[in-house]
Amino acid sequence: MKIAVLGTGSVGGALGCRWAQAGHEVFFGALDPNSDEAQAALERAGASARVGACADAIAAAEAVLLAIPWDQTQSVLQAAGSLRGKILMDCINPLTPDLMGVTLGHTTSAAEQIAEWFPEARVVKAFNTLSAATMENPRYGAQNAHVFICGDDEAAKGTVKELARVLGFDPVECGPLKLARQLEPLGALYVYLAVFQGWGGDCAFRMLKR
Amino acid sequence: MKIAVLGTGSVGGALGCRWAQAGHEVFFGALDPNSDEAQAALERAGASARVGACADAIAAAEAVLLAIPWDQTQSVLQAAGSLRGKILMDCINPLTPDLMGVTLGHTTSAAEQIAEWFPEARVVKAFNTLSAATMENPRYGAQNAHVFICGDDEAAKGTVKELARVLGFDPVECGPLKLARQLEPLGALYVYLAVFQGWGGDCAFRMLKR
Repeated sequence: MKIAVLGTGSVGGALGCRWAQAGHEVFFGALDPNSDEAQAALERAGASARVGACADAIAAAEAVLLAIPWDQTQSVLQAAGSLRGKILMDCINPLTPDLMGVTLGHTTSAAEQIAEWFPEARVVKAFNTLSAATMENPRYGAQNAHVFICGDDEAAKGTVKELARVLGFDPVECGPLKLARQLEPLGALYVYLAVFQGWGGDCAFRMLKR
Repeated sequence: MKIAVLGTGSVGGALGCRWAQAGHEVFFGALDPNSDEAQAALERAGASARVGACADAIAAAEAVLLAIPWDQTQSVLQAAGSLRGKILMDCINPLTPDLMGVTLGHTTSAAEQIAEWFPEARVVKAFNTLSAATMENPRYGAQNAHVFICGDDEAAKGTVKELARVLGFDPVECGPLKLARQLEPLGALYVYLAVFQGWGGDCAFRMLKR
């Protein structure tokens, strides 16, 4: 698949590079494609990967990973050309500055806000409850981290689940996009535990089953 | 400890009976103490347990489990005598009728609402992300279900963590009461997955660590 990865930090770097290593065509989008960070992601991803402006990455892609800050999301996507039919993989946590909560919720979510701004796109909430360390390696002993996935387009969710599986995650179907009102607080809970309760990044939620 | 368990359904029944079997003094509070359900809980809990009106159960107790519907919570607690110093273990999920979300959130939570109504009490959010089946048996292979606990009173949280451990749960410290804004959506996510995505009740969240 042609995947645009917007953001070359710890999230975009981990997922983008691993998708490239798994054989996908990854086009990193960065505010500064010549930054050390962007160039490092390109080098790690390998010969088939590219880096450029976000709008160029989006234009080339079928699926787009949003690994950019929430407060840049609308403007970055507005600067792109058509988003029609493109899968937007929203792994954003719209956190308050104190990292203890989310800036919107309950009657809406960041994912639903994106879908309202860009109704021609196919928004899928996914990967937002994971640390960069887990994105690099989803394995916890004999178990994989779970990726909680919701969205209103079934085919888009199916594609994102395959992109999760190829990296070693176990996807969990979480229904329509409005369930982002539960997945974004879950991401906020994860950040709170990792940062304030000593868990760090080598931890991941899983729904145990018997 | 003297524990009031308000509600004799699948939640109050599971936790109340298991605390009684673990040696605690359990006083069930029920709208109808003579109902089949209340009498069944009493019988299962054993000789040291009692059942009566909610106000009587609360009066006798140091810790109170709120296993009643959200829409009855304020009135049941208002009908009690003093709640001063009592630990209120809030395991309520304030779900919408369609079971797909919560009726309040983001800038508040059911737990914080209870604390506003009854500032003399010590509210601890706990046990709200668990099925009755998990409350009966927290064991998943070699792992225990996690219980996510938050509250503004450290000693009260310590007590609740011990009440969780005695039943075989592993407690997870989740900070101040405002984190209920994340724990209540987690409970709603649990219900959604159990009811609408085929998980059923023999499943439980755990934060894996390596």
